[in-house]
Amino acid sequence: MKILVVNGNTTDAITQRIGAEARAAASPGTEIVAVSAPFGARVVGTRAENAIAAHAVLDAAARHHAGCDAVVVAISSDAGTAATRELLPIPVLGITEAALLTACTVGGAFGVLTFGARVAAWSHELVASYGLTDRLAAVEALDAPAATFTDPDSFAGPLLAGIERLVAQGADSVAIAGAAFAGCCRLLQARAPVPLLDGVACAVGLAEMRVRLGLTKPRAGSYAEVPARELSGVDAAICTLFGAKPTS
Amino acid sequence: MKILVVNGNTTDAITQRIGAEARAAASPGTEIVAVSAPFGARVVGTRAENAIAAHAVLDAAARHHAGCDAVVVAISSDAGTAATRELLPIPVLGITEAALLTACTVGGAFGVLTFGARVAAWSHELVASYGLTDRLAAVEALDAPAATFTDPDSFAGPLLAGIERLVAQGADSVAIAGAAFAGCCRLLQARAPVPLLDGVACAVGLAEMRVRLGLTKPRAGSYAEVPARELSGVDAAICTLFGAKPTS
Amino acid sequence: MKILVVNGNTTDAITQRIGAEARAAASPGTEIVAVSAPFGARVVGTRAENAIAAHAVLDAAARHHAGCDAVVVAISSDAGTAATRELLPIPVLGITEAALLTACTVGGAFGVLTFGARVAAWSHELVASYGLTDRLAAVEALDAPAATFTDPDSFAGPLLAGIERLVAQGADSVAIAGAAFAGCCRLLQARAPVPLLDGVACAVGLAEMRVRLGLTKPRAGSYAEVPARELSGVDAAICTLFGAKPTS
Amino acid sequence: MKILVVNGNTTDAITQRIGAEARAAASPGTEIVAVSAPFGARVVGTRAENAIAAHAVLDAAARHHAGCDAVVVAISSDAGTAATRELLPIPVLGITEAALLTACTVGGAFGVLTFGARVAAWSHELVASYGLTDRLAAVEALDAPAATFTDPDSFAGPLLAGIERLVAQGADSVAIAGAAFAGCCRLLQARAPVPLLDGVACAVGLAEMRVRLGLTKPRAGSYAEVPARELSGVDAAICTLFGAKPTS
Amino acid sequence: MKILVVNGNTTDAITQRIGAEARAAASPGTEIVAVSAPFGARVVGTRAENAIAAHAVLDAAARHHAGCDAVVVAISSDAGTAATRELLPIPVLGITEAALLTACTVGGAFGVLTFGARVAAWSHELVASYGLTDRLAAVEALDAPAATFTDPDSFAGPLLAGIERLVAQGADSVAIAGAAFAGCCRLLQARAPVPLLDGVACAVGLAEMRVRLGLTKPRAGSYAEVPARELSGVDAAICTLFGAKPTS
Amino acid sequence: MKILVVNGNTTDAITQRIGAEARAAASPGTEIVAVSAPFGARVVGTRAENAIAAHAVLDAAARHHAGCDAVVVAISSDAGTAATRELLPIPVLGITEAALLTACTVGGAFGVLTFGARVAAWSHELVASYGLTDRLAAVEALDAPAATFTDPDSFAGPLLAGIERLVAQGADSVAIAGAAFAGCCRLLQARAPVPLLDGVACAVGLAEMRVRLGLTKPRAGSYAEVPARELSGVDAAICTLFGAKPTS
Repeated sequence: MKILVVNGNTTDAITQRIGAEARAAASPGTEIVAVSAPFGARVVGTRAENAIAAHAVLDAAARHHAGCDAVVVAISSDAGTAATRELLPIPVLGITEAALLTACTVGGAFGVLTFGARVAAWSHELVASYGLTDRLAAVEALDAPAATFTDPDSFAGPLLAGIERLVAQGADSVAIAGAAFAGCCRLLQARAPVPLLDGVACAVGLAEMRVRLGLTKPRAGSYAEVPARELSGVDAAICTLFGAKPTS
Repeated sequence: MKILVVNGNTTDAITQRIGAEARAAASPGTEIVAVSAPFGARVVGTRAENAIAAHAVLDAAARHHAGCDAVVVAISSDAGTAATRELLPIPVLGITEAALLTACTVGGAFGVLTFGARVAAWSHELVASYGLTDRLAAVEALDAPAATFTDPDSFAGPLLAGIERLVAQGADSVAIAGAAFAGCCRLLQARAPVPLLDGVACAVGLAEMRVRLGLTKPRAGSYAEVPARELSGVDAAICTLFGAKPTS
Repeated sequence: MKILVVNGNTTDAITQRIGAEARAAASPGTEIVAVSAPFGARVVGTRAENAIAAHAVLDAAARHHAGCDAVVVAISSDAGTAATRELLPIPVLGITEAALLTACTVGGAFGVLTFGARVAAWSHELVASYGLTDRLAAVEALDAPAATFTDPDSFAGPLLAGIERLVAQGADSVAIAGAAFAGCCRLLQARAPVPLLDGVACAVGLAEMRVRLGLTKPRAGSYAEVPARELSGVDAAICTLFGAKPTS
Repeated sequence: MKILVVNGNTTDAITQRIGAEARAAASPGTEIVAVSAPFGARVVGTRAENAIAAHAVLDAAARHHAGCDAVVVAISSDAGTAATRELLPIPVLGITEAALLTACTVGGAFGVLTFGARVAAWSHELVASYGLTDRLAAVEALDAPAATFTDPDSFAGPLLAGIERLVAQGADSVAIAGAAFAGCCRLLQARAPVPLLDGVACAVGLAEMRVRLGLTKPRAGSYAEVPARELSGVDAAICTLFGAKPTS
Repeated sequence: MKILVVNGNTTDAITQRIGAEARAAASPGTEIVAVSAPFGARVVGTRAENAIAAHAVLDAAARHHAGCDAVVVAISSDAGTAATRELLPIPVLGITEAALLTACTVGGAFGVLTFGARVAAWSHELVASYGLTDRLAAVEALDAPAATFTDPDSFAGPLLAGIERLVAQGADSVAIAGAAFAGCCRLLQARAPVPLLDGVACAVGLAEMRVRLGLTKPRAGSYAEVPARELSGVDAAICTLFGAKPTS
Repeated sequence: MKILVVNGNTTDAITQRIGAEARAAASPGTEIVAVSAPFGARVVGTRAENAIAAHAVLDAAARHHAGCDAVVVAISSDAGTAATRELLPIPVLGITEAALLTACTVGGAFGVLTFGARVAAWSHELVASYGLTDRLAAVEALDAPAATFTDPDSFAGPLLAGIERLVAQGADSVAIAGAAFAGCCRLLQARAPVPLLDGVACAVGLAEMRVRLGLTKPRAGSYAEVPARELSGVDAAICTLFGAKPTS
């Protein structure tokens, strides 16, 4: 099995970290291909950058999905996940979505640990967009922006403190949201009182599970195969999926 | 006062219709500048096209907002509205958001009339994203895609029937969602039992109201001025707003 | 354009403050007529007083709306707004409703600053009655009752502290609820990190917008023109609107 | 024990029917005193009439509650119930509230049978105001207004058909909402597949239960004893409860 | 009237305390029969013990309900209440359900005081299962497990402090959840600012009220009389109610 | 990897069907052990039977989980899933829960196809208990009880018609709920327009994914390892997990 992992940020160092966690989580025999967003922000931290990232994720997935069995969208906002899911014939999973659904299998309520007050607002909105607000214990936002966490290990103290605050607010598990934090849960789990959910690991696991399950692409509903459409000024790979000739 | 109206679709004929309705709704002395999306779908009808449209709306707003007092985003999904609102220092209104908030001032529950089963699903998601599901009586989706409604007048029959079905389900007002239907409410109002809400007219009205109110740009929260960021592969106008030099 | 502003309290000093803010917010050419509740509490602060105020607002609106284009109901509970909206053929806006809907156009979540623990409970109920609970970040209730705030300027310290607490809880904007606080936002905005929403100003703005939009009175639904009814013991102006002869 | 039943309508014939059902439902030894609203609509059927009825109920309860152990507010909208509950030191129950809470003890979801499309909208709002929307299977509104049901027995056919439609939509019990329908459930129960809830009977039962339970009047919260207040133009009995001298 | 009270725990000392409170709350002429769970945990404090308790409650109710007019299920989780309600032809009330519905008649929001963080999670889930989350101000969990409260009187301090925290969070009344705390409210009410709700007392009150009301057993819906079924390995009394011969 | 599948019904023929579907869905190398409920109903179809089944599932899982890596609870109500999850140190998945979470990865809204009006009510309650109501398009209940579907293939017509009705109501995928229907989706998928979700297959897939992910057992929260407890009259295997000696 081959899974394409698309980093919604343009920073290759984050792509490498995501790729490493994806490989660590994958079953034997699963190949991981990790690519960076072709345009947009180095590290997405605003709504405007997310809007660009959604397009960039779609673009990268359209270009690189051939030969892959599933796509993982690696950005804490899951930007572009729904669009890519609709456009492609294969399973597409967002990392935060995957972490939240996996948290549901742990039972009870989950907490979300995220980075920066701006991002905390999106986390609430994202959880709500998945219809999962009733399962949310709380969101805790660490002050430092994701961009500064180049060495996750050195941030164990604040992260563990945030986890404890979430547990005190009723969290039965904690999702650490953010592509830049891929792999972090492995480092911290032994010191945390509840299961920690790494979105990349969860998304790879769910992607493998979906591939094995072999569900068909919908022929009806809001994720059905896209109809033929005319587009201009977008990548040829996207146009091809819409059965359109690219035009400038 | 000058209001920039950005069509999320690339079809200039729709841009002209939107511009005409915006001018018809505007106060004396308000100037309307209407532009088409610089790239993307001729008429957006899928999630994938919406993801592209959000970027295109942001791009167009970044390029054309100078000298304007407010922006109206004209696409039924309100694609790019939140991102543009965060990025710019002036009020930004989406047409469906504006229609729904105006419907709230009528009292009771609103209905939404939209086009195609795919789009009906987004309408529910969009209303939910605004936290307005409790005010929603029902969504009715006409079978024909928006693209075919080049002559709204000839579709009065199905539209009025849809409105009646919404009223029977408890709608105290009806929003006709879709940039391609700008102006339609004027043609049908006399034959409809409840107020009809044209998103373009409502958005222009709310934009004028917001400009007169003179609210400040937030300095905190999730819509605060964006911090300096590094982006690549995006339009120079967006980069400038992030205080970044454009890089390829 | 002429807008009737009905104070739900009987205190004329508050009516004057409301009228002044309404005039400050109105477009050039808009005339404001401000009247006090004809009976009830000097300053409404309980559920029982609100029930009386709803009747008093309806009574005042019925008597004074002739020649007006819209009505603004100025009392933090919006008492009587729905009833007056149904009874009259012109737009009717409540000040808290108007502040909350305007807050929605700012994006994200709003906070509500109010006065006294009793009133905090109503604020939650009122937000819920508008279906806007998902947009509510938090309610902060200042200890002092509204009646004591005869000099809003001297209360800047506690008000700004309350605003900061709301922002810390995720508010992207703050509505200051209470007719007695009309005009307060103008005094405090420069020192607040998010937009402050004055209900009177927002209601005047939305009323003007609604008048320009020219929506029709519903002929169906729960806000349709009232049928002919028999009433006794109520003001002749109300009876007239129901097409009834007043009886004692 | 003595229970005051306040009809929110001014029609004495309805008051008599309510009183008869209250007596039929009461325990031996419970005395029922039924009074009509002192002013307002003969039969309330609009929001505007409800606003007046809330005041009238409060007025009647203030005047007549002396010597009573509890108050039942008999009007389908429960107009004035919350206000009266706050103002008086004794338990106050609304008939629709009582029917819905009793329905909860039956388990599962309840249906609401009501009269006229206008009233159906309030029913949804009322259920929501009690936080009970998740328990609501559906609302069915019979076409005829309550005012025409002077002989409930002759309406058995449409009522039973409405009940069956509610059961088909998942109702495990059905509340027949409307003071004018007091006693109706007794006539129809044998022919209905689920328990029928008469608001007057349920409210008398809950009032008796509350009296026996002997809960104290809150000293804190939003239903605490009202503070001393100044009112004008309202009934002396209300003023007295606020510790105020009546002023014109 | 005769009411069967089933303790979901197997500890007879708790059964006696529950029985005493039930008798104190009952009307003159109501007989109380209190029985312990026939198997399961001495004091239920986990989800697993609750699953066993639900079966034990059903078993006890099947065996002992003959000659009774109603059943009260006395365990804070209301384990087995829905199942017993469906199986028996008489009213069945859970103690937490009864406390919450009675709290609704007080108006506004209720708080829940419970014991141990584990149980706090269930309390939220239980309130949600009744569709009453919108009425919930907060849950406060005292640290000590219910099992240690053999002398409720000595715990007045922490209990009253918990009540005050709930009032500060908006509770207009407080339910003290837990069969082991039956009778506690009587001891503490005089020192509490809001009404305290004892589940056993409320359930006895509602059971009496339901018996007087004489609602019929549903013949349709999800609580209708159970169909004939084949069961094995369960108590003969349960089998009899399903019209089945017991088999090993 | 070894997965224990516990049928919540006592019918061995259903256990065999479940086991076959579990094996068909499992990865190579995964061993499936399927056992029937040790006591309870042949085919669970009422709330009372579900209460018994929850205990029976717990009992079976306690007895048979040794040497297993995960447990799947196979009964449409997921009876006993939360209790078993809390009690055991390994992942536990319910089949309906698994189907719904997998449906979430398809995107949009899911429909639930179930059997009998009684069961339809539980389906709504179960979806709500998972906090997933916002993702639910509709529930369709086929008239025949699950017990009669001994030959699923012959029921293709009604099942496909039910699926089409769900799609028409907005379902992007459909879960066929009911242990007795294990394997049904494989037979029908080719003729259905949206992905069909077999709970057994989804639960096996999620169980495998959870085992590979290696999340730790919570040490805090409402699913933490159970404390030592005293129980009586229950199976020795349950007692052992509570660190208790079994007593009669």
